[in-house]
Amino acid sequence: METNALSNQQTIFPGRAPSYDDLIQELDGLLRGERDWLVNLANASALLKLRIAELNWAGFYLWRDGQLVLGPFQGKPACVRIGRGRGVCGTAAARHTSLVVADVHQFAGHIACDAASASEVVIPLELPDRQIGVMDLDAPIPGRFNDADRAGLEVFAQHLTIGTDWPVFIGDATIPPQP
Amino acid sequence: METNALSNQQTIFPGRAPSYDDLIQELDGLLRGERDWLVNLANASALLKLRIAELNWAGFYLWRDGQLVLGPFQGKPACVRIGRGRGVCGTAAARHTSLVVADVHQFAGHIACDAASASEVVIPLELPDRQIGVMDLDAPIPGRFNDADRAGLEVFAQHLTIGTDWPVFIGDATIPPQP
Repeated sequence: METNALSNQQTIFPGRAPSYDDLIQELDGLLRGERDWLVNLANASALLKLRIAELNWAGFYLWRDGQLVLGPFQGKPACVRIGRGRGVCGTAAARHTSLVVADVHQFAGHIACDAASASEVVIPLELPDRQIGVMDLDAPIPGRFNDADRAGLEVFAQHLTIGTDWPVFIGDATIPPQP
Repeated sequence: METNALSNQQTIFPGRAPSYDDLIQELDGLLRGERDWLVNLANASALLKLRIAELNWAGFYLWRDGQLVLGPFQGKPACVRIGRGRGVCGTAAARHTSLVVADVHQFAGHIACDAASASEVVIPLELPDRQIGVMDLDAPIPGRFNDADRAGLEVFAQHLTIGTDWPVFIGDATIPPQP
């Protein structure tokens, strides 16, 4: 269907962090006047895929009934459920910290489903009372994501989390608090 | 994140209908053992975008609180809410029928948000007691969709609707029954 009027801004290339500011401004534009969780996750994944160069997957896994369950994303059909502490997503969630993995094939416990994915960054989405899930970006080249990408994506995730109303059936309050 | 092991099957090109059978077999594979609505809509939109050639958008609008609200999709960020009877999506929903529009710019009341979209097909998702929403595919060329596409996508939508558990907060029972 019909897309909003977005600018013709270029994509964010590896190692060029400044334009994360532009990306987050665009996100804020999408969030303005819309706080629905499903709408905002769907459009946020579309914005990530549109604006960040060299991604093969961008989307969300959400805590539902004690598992990280596939939510809105852009990319090829994906694994549907990730158990506690499993893979890069589950590990980032359990540690309450972003994870940048330069080579997913070297990550112990990596859930290898898409042979095309070579590097990955995972950002937890956190509310004061519970963890919503994780934002996950994959790239088909090793070492795609650096600290600038991580920092930019953490701000993106914060704006998305704060700018959205989350229903009670999403989230997990049993993840141990950060040390 | 990680994708399931899908075949290297080619995409469905305009006017070549036979491989809708293959597409629906792949959908059935994704639905096997997974009846969650969010998972299935997210993966179904990914499968449509992956397998059907010359699409710029593929996804779902769901009835929530009396509006067609954006759900999982693949493509550029999209319009978030469509009122009753508005645009191609709202018209197909109100009429309980699939609509193929060869040139969206000639469709009275078309909600023009993405200048790239030239043709469109919309398929209602129907349960016996209510309408779930619509499945919407856009193409950047006029006349992309023919009757074979429509027939194949209707079967796809039926399998998806039947193979999924729908929560009570999605759907609209007030749409008049089909004449």
